[in-house]
Amino acid sequence: MRKTATNSRNFELFCPTDFRYGVDDLASFLSEEAYVKYKARVEGALAIQLSRAGVCSRSVATEIARACQKVNAWEVYDEEARIKHDVRALANVIRRRVSDRAKPYVHLTATSYDIVDTANSLRFKDAVNQVVLPDLVKLERALIRISTRYAKSVQVGRTHGQHAEPITFGFFLSYYVSRLGKRILKMREAADNLTGKFAGAVGVYGPLSLVVGDPERFERELLRSLGLKPSEVSTQIVQPEAVADLMHCVVSTFGVLANFSRDMRHLQRTEIDEVSEEYSSKQVGSSTMPQKRNPISFENLESLWKKFMPQMVTVYLDQVSEHQRDLTNSSSQRYLPELIVAFDYCVRRLTKTIWDDAGKRPRIKINAKQMKRNLESSIDEMAAEPLYILLAAAGHRDAHEYVRTVVQRSIDASSSFRGAIKSDPKLQAYGNIIGEKMKFVENPELYIGLAARKTMTVAKIWEKLLRTELPG
Amino acid sequence: MRKTATNSRNFELFCPTDFRYGVDDLASFLSEEAYVKYKARVEGALAIQLSRAGVCSRSVATEIARACQKVNAWEVYDEEARIKHDVRALANVIRRRVSDRAKPYVHLTATSYDIVDTANSLRFKDAVNQVVLPDLVKLERALIRISTRYAKSVQVGRTHGQHAEPITFGFFLSYYVSRLGKRILKMREAADNLTGKFAGAVGVYGPLSLVVGDPERFERELLRSLGLKPSEVSTQIVQPEAVADLMHCVVSTFGVLANFSRDMRHLQRTEIDEVSEEYSSKQVGSSTMPQKRNPISFENLESLWKKFMPQMVTVYLDQVSEHQRDLTNSSSQRYLPELIVAFDYCVRRLTKTIWDDAGKRPRIKINAKQMKRNLESSIDEMAAEPLYILLAAAGHRDAHEYVRTVVQRSIDASSSFRGAIKSDPKLQAYGNIIGEKMKFVENPELYIGLAARKTMTVAKIWEKLLRTELPG
Amino acid sequence: MRKTATNSRNFELFCPTDFRYGVDDLASFLSEEAYVKYKARVEGALAIQLSRAGVCSRSVATEIARACQKVNAWEVYDEEARIKHDVRALANVIRRRVSDRAKPYVHLTATSYDIVDTANSLRFKDAVNQVVLPDLVKLERALIRISTRYAKSVQVGRTHGQHAEPITFGFFLSYYVSRLGKRILKMREAADNLTGKFAGAVGVYGPLSLVVGDPERFERELLRSLGLKPSEVSTQIVQPEAVADLMHCVVSTFGVLANFSRDMRHLQRTEIDEVSEEYSSKQVGSSTMPQKRNPISFENLESLWKKFMPQMVTVYLDQVSEHQRDLTNSSSQRYLPELIVAFDYCVRRLTKTIWDDAGKRPRIKINAKQMKRNLESSIDEMAAEPLYILLAAAGHRDAHEYVRTVVQRSIDASSSFRGAIKSDPKLQAYGNIIGEKMKFVENPELYIGLAARKTMTVAKIWEKLLRTELPG
Amino acid sequence: MRKTATNSRNFELFCPTDFRYGVDDLASFLSEEAYVKYKARVEGALAIQLSRAGVCSRSVATEIARACQKVNAWEVYDEEARIKHDVRALANVIRRRVSDRAKPYVHLTATSYDIVDTANSLRFKDAVNQVVLPDLVKLERALIRISTRYAKSVQVGRTHGQHAEPITFGFFLSYYVSRLGKRILKMREAADNLTGKFAGAVGVYGPLSLVVGDPERFERELLRSLGLKPSEVSTQIVQPEAVADLMHCVVSTFGVLANFSRDMRHLQRTEIDEVSEEYSSKQVGSSTMPQKRNPISFENLESLWKKFMPQMVTVYLDQVSEHQRDLTNSSSQRYLPELIVAFDYCVRRLTKTIWDDAGKRPRIKINAKQMKRNLESSIDEMAAEPLYILLAAAGHRDAHEYVRTVVQRSIDASSSFRGAIKSDPKLQAYGNIIGEKMKFVENPELYIGLAARKTMTVAKIWEKLLRTELPG
Repeated sequence: MRKTATNSRNFELFCPTDFRYGVDDLASFLSEEAYVKYKARVEGALAIQLSRAGVCSRSVATEIARACQKVNAWEVYDEEARIKHDVRALANVIRRRVSDRAKPYVHLTATSYDIVDTANSLRFKDAVNQVVLPDLVKLERALIRISTRYAKSVQVGRTHGQHAEPITFGFFLSYYVSRLGKRILKMREAADNLTGKFAGAVGVYGPLSLVVGDPERFERELLRSLGLKPSEVSTQIVQPEAVADLMHCVVSTFGVLANFSRDMRHLQRTEIDEVSEEYSSKQVGSSTMPQKRNPISFENLESLWKKFMPQMVTVYLDQVSEHQRDLTNSSSQRYLPELIVAFDYCVRRLTKTIWDDAGKRPRIKINAKQMKRNLESSIDEMAAEPLYILLAAAGHRDAHEYVRTVVQRSIDASSSFRGAIKSDPKLQAYGNIIGEKMKFVENPELYIGLAARKTMTVAKIWEKLLRTELPG
Repeated sequence: MRKTATNSRNFELFCPTDFRYGVDDLASFLSEEAYVKYKARVEGALAIQLSRAGVCSRSVATEIARACQKVNAWEVYDEEARIKHDVRALANVIRRRVSDRAKPYVHLTATSYDIVDTANSLRFKDAVNQVVLPDLVKLERALIRISTRYAKSVQVGRTHGQHAEPITFGFFLSYYVSRLGKRILKMREAADNLTGKFAGAVGVYGPLSLVVGDPERFERELLRSLGLKPSEVSTQIVQPEAVADLMHCVVSTFGVLANFSRDMRHLQRTEIDEVSEEYSSKQVGSSTMPQKRNPISFENLESLWKKFMPQMVTVYLDQVSEHQRDLTNSSSQRYLPELIVAFDYCVRRLTKTIWDDAGKRPRIKINAKQMKRNLESSIDEMAAEPLYILLAAAGHRDAHEYVRTVVQRSIDASSSFRGAIKSDPKLQAYGNIIGEKMKFVENPELYIGLAARKTMTVAKIWEKLLRTELPG
Repeated sequence: MRKTATNSRNFELFCPTDFRYGVDDLASFLSEEAYVKYKARVEGALAIQLSRAGVCSRSVATEIARACQKVNAWEVYDEEARIKHDVRALANVIRRRVSDRAKPYVHLTATSYDIVDTANSLRFKDAVNQVVLPDLVKLERALIRISTRYAKSVQVGRTHGQHAEPITFGFFLSYYVSRLGKRILKMREAADNLTGKFAGAVGVYGPLSLVVGDPERFERELLRSLGLKPSEVSTQIVQPEAVADLMHCVVSTFGVLANFSRDMRHLQRTEIDEVSEEYSSKQVGSSTMPQKRNPISFENLESLWKKFMPQMVTVYLDQVSEHQRDLTNSSSQRYLPELIVAFDYCVRRLTKTIWDDAGKRPRIKINAKQMKRNLESSIDEMAAEPLYILLAAAGHRDAHEYVRTVVQRSIDASSSFRGAIKSDPKLQAYGNIIGEKMKFVENPELYIGLAARKTMTVAKIWEKLLRTELPG
Repeated sequence: MRKTATNSRNFELFCPTDFRYGVDDLASFLSEEAYVKYKARVEGALAIQLSRAGVCSRSVATEIARACQKVNAWEVYDEEARIKHDVRALANVIRRRVSDRAKPYVHLTATSYDIVDTANSLRFKDAVNQVVLPDLVKLERALIRISTRYAKSVQVGRTHGQHAEPITFGFFLSYYVSRLGKRILKMREAADNLTGKFAGAVGVYGPLSLVVGDPERFERELLRSLGLKPSEVSTQIVQPEAVADLMHCVVSTFGVLANFSRDMRHLQRTEIDEVSEEYSSKQVGSSTMPQKRNPISFENLESLWKKFMPQMVTVYLDQVSEHQRDLTNSSSQRYLPELIVAFDYCVRRLTKTIWDDAGKRPRIKINAKQMKRNLESSIDEMAAEPLYILLAAAGHRDAHEYVRTVVQRSIDASSSFRGAIKSDPKLQAYGNIIGEKMKFVENPELYIGLAARKTMTVAKIWEKLLRTELPG
């Protein structure tokens, strides 16, 4: 229905989500038009349930449900302008489309938030299950593939921005495979836990108790027909924690991607140069420095994360609603779809940045040679840890302090640490005990521990979990 | 240019600011279209300054400046889609509109953020000075008028939600007159402190130093022609604190309005009933409870405050930009206009909610009788404070403890506190010392201190300051 | 070990958590002293595991483990002052306490964060399981008991601060029983998901791979001996999401309590007066208004929530750690214990405020008479909803609009709505159809729907869940 | 009074600010003990003003003022435990220390928050003026000195983490000299704008109006005696914006330091190696990697910024206080001192990290050679910008696109860009027009624009401003 963000050309707008960072595939769930349609759909389901409960006839219910399918945002907004109430406006619009005998049953027993909260849970669940999770799975699969491809490519591990000990590039990625995978499962669970409600204006099923025998069963069946569970107890609104949990999942997954993007853009630093974003031949890096090539997609993601992450404060503030509810969560809640959209935009952009799905290969440029070169620049000092461990395991009583002193002296003198060790007579005895493991001291690039193996294990775990837990 | 929010009917959008909470008058400053136009205007001013500095001819500069006036967002976005750089895209679009001899001087010496940061400072300044501040002044004037009208209407002062001592309704408002007034002056100052820059890609005026003799003077004069001051030192970007200060003003002013809205909606509580929002005869308060009349405008404002206030976290995060800048403030910064729009929407809605400008009278319904009734319901206990003060001033050694014991006993026994005092022989002596001031104990509704006078003083101060400091 | 907050008398401190809002029972988990002890305990477990893996002898391991039990914060801080590294300082302190032959095996194969992250997960888990969850269960039980006691006490339901339809006070509470109950289960799950790690400086098990055959098994067994699971893949640190999930549980549970406190303090408003905090005879409400009695505990909780909730922003920021980690989560992470402490302080204070455990009765004063009085003040209008529903169910085509018009007219005229209905000839026909359900229109205080029944059901559900899911 | 953080050895505490990140010099303003003393000092000033206004005798006032000087936190907390009100407890403690004839005048006419808010403004102002600002000035001076010392040391400017164009290290610093300088002036202004109040329980000067003729004058004179201005209108509390402005200054200054720290720790990256923190010979960098040297002070600062910056959300939330105040800002406000302390700790630690005050030289190690080496590694491409500018200024119609194509081709071919240009016959003509400025293309390390000069100018500006605006 909605044209691409670029085609939409809504440049008279204020908010960049719509003209710059939108996801068209989410429009049928998260646009305002979709919101109205979801609310109408809930009104339709209510009519059907009323007929099931014998309150109205089947034909009346069908008439209402059909009318609900035809509602559009335009007419509802027009009616709202007149009567200043959005959900009553919706009911009026539906009523206009049905016969007089059906009119009384439109919206009957419902309070506005029976409709609103149920519709929101429904569309958030649909958006997450139908778009966001599949998008995340694509990203996860891309990460898995790149990680296994580079499972053995040595790279220097960095802590505090300082060279530490060797890892592999695949292992670096497998950390994100695991973190992202776990978030995906968590998000699916949070989406499934979203609840609807049909308990009336203050949560005690007042209206329903006037017309049906078992209001809780009515609510349960109605929501089941929509694929939702009921809020255990409600006021005018559903318990806010289910949505808060989902948003926590979105924001914390965003954080994982932000961490990945931070890493990638630093790996693209001129001095490091281990990865870089693809660059088209027509692309301009700077309006004044013709030579520039920048990690703009990774920067973009981190920037959007900084923008949207603090919205969790709003989510937490919206947990507080006075008595059987005040309305101070209403406008703020209308911005939740945008958070999901901006997040999904980032998931898609990131996937496209790192993975060429047509070519089945990384789109990101990975410079394995430069990784090796960087590692080698401090390989001498990296012998320090394995030496310390091996000495200690061999019974040396001050292995850490001994090694620390020697290596720091070498660094200060810009001389060879391994040379200094070799020539130290005190170490001769230990050499024999240590035996062939001295190779890790002599060639620290071998000292990658389980990096390669673990990369493959993690890949297998998550390939399987994606298959079994998130089919489709 | 832009139609009203309702007329725009962009219901395919995700973000409510555009279809629900927008301010059309801000579109010419804060929409994406306006953003492009402001950037083009800065490019035009650059060309003029280049001619003033003798780098190009006057006619070339005029040609470029005219071309800049014709740029629109559509063509710039098209070009950006091709070359993936927004400001170079703008330069290309301008270049297309000028003759070959003018082409070299388009964007000459500028880096993208010379244009971007200058354009943003300019449009934020314009938006604040031309729309937001006048809107705030209207609200402030409305508050002043209502405050003086009710300067003497007694109301119970409440602390901790408990009746405390009497005030007047006008005095309650004068607290907001003062708080809002101070914020208005602060915001004007913050808008005036916004800075532009023309110091090139890393802030050292590299390009300018190749073509003009005094780059700092060039920058100063160019910015002066636009009504801005230069950032004292820049990197690729202006110092972020000027924008952070402006956003702090916006958010903290929002907080003042949120406090006012919180107060007003609680004063509308059924049990309190001292004020209420106007209600049209066709307006629906609830989709199921036909009797409801809710403080929806005050709730709406508090809700939007909860949504937008946490964006300050983004502003603070954006203070950190690595080395001569990274781009992680770019997308996030594109959302600053929306914050200003949502704030201004609230200012306007609040003004309309409380003040009928055509009728020159409050639109909010103020129930002075009910105020009096509420006060009277606990007037007996309110004698406690004046009695304690008068007793102590008369030399009673344990006045607070004495009064506390008597009044708590009266409360527990639901008996008259003033009766208990009158019949206490120990107090006879003090009565003589206290003299005619006993009237405040006998009639605590007189015990409003300077409430009325202060209301008038504050009104006068701010009427004058608005006149002298914010003319127009 | 630690004296009560009042007895500690550390008034030379800056931070109120320690001298004002502390929980002594958490000191053995969350104080700095406890932190050092937990780290030492992890070092001890490492030694034992090294002996199990054959790296050192059993007697050496036992010697180290015993030495670990004796470590205290003082000596570790002294050593840190000398060498400027906190965990190496700990290792040195342990080394000093053991024989020369044991020295090499202290901290062997570990990197600092193997110890730090494991110790933190361990103590957070212990603190939650041993103190916070039991405290929450006590609060939940108190809520359950008060809710069932007042299951049938009618109260007016309020939406937008306006009287809406009747509920019961027990039902109001059962909403919190359910919300809090769900958070308790979620928090237990989050605590159980905390992970440790023993994967070395960059996560590839470098050191372990030098001395044991199966490093992952070594890690698994070592952590199992401590009651933890391993992080699936680590860098220098565990994956941050497990802690983020726990903190989200803490903060969102805090939000539930903040909502409850907000409700309670408004129910204590002078005009509403339905509940009030207990007040001792010596207690002073105001330093100048001797009559004041304020809801200070509820205010206190809301205030601490406002203080600590935004710390989630820090938690989200700490998800980002560059490459195999930077240290910018170190100081910030040291403040996580305080968040748990302040939260638990609030849980305890809230429990004590509402429930007298010795007397097995509410400590909060509940004024059921006043609840009834408040309800009755607008009972006439509350007939509107049941009438609208019953009319519509009886086939009236414009029931909502009809009722809305009549009730608004009655409100404006301050006349009886039910009177107006009774005298309306148009309604005669419907009366017959509606039949005995007209009682809900005539006596809307009967119109409480399932309030009482649902209160009891929810109480039973959670009593059972607490028993089966959170025994002990 | 208070021992150093290390000596305090309060390891039974929960909050690291006190045992790890404290500033002893702030204890006499911001500790709880100091808070009590400041409140007592305000009570003393009140007594003196009462005597000036003729309410009590001079000797009574002096007696009270002297008693106020002797109050300590211990006794006040004891009394609070009894009566559950902190300020009445203080008044009682003072009363105990004075004769019977003085007792009535203790606290007379004051409400608690007359004392609390005035005391807080006073101690915040003192802490900022006497400790924080002097500390900031020391840091600013250190930055100025290092900037001028390295005014001409070329360094590569980096945007997006990519080499851009040359700057100087001094220029890099002068950006912070300017940003920090501006914040210092802003913070001084914010501290001076803090206000006190003496307007009673609901702000209308009720008590004062019973005993003095001109309550506003009484308030003005009393506050003047303490060095404060009055809040223009108050409720029970001062207008919250003055404190919010101060905290915004603290947090935004923290942001400037966080940016600087981020830069510095990245400049210490192994591959960049342009600066490094001083390292003592006994210092341990890693518990397992003996070779490590980490930028721990810069990491520490960024971490504490992440912890404390979000507290602004609390400050904004505390702007909202219902009616004439609720108490939900009370506990949260007690944490404001900690924010100032943690900030000042960072200022001091940063200063010590970069500047050796005894030796009057940088403590931070600056590797100017490595800076040159890094610059040279991409110097060839840096010719692109000056060439583009010079060509365009010489009338080339497509200078940017021409240079972009050539330089990208050179980068892709790893060949010399300057070589390619030299051999391009199309450029011959332009060479003549450009003339001697071709030196910037041939030797881009000369292309530093105004970097050196601007560094010196900024240094002079701020040296002078510190001298004239912040003497002492």
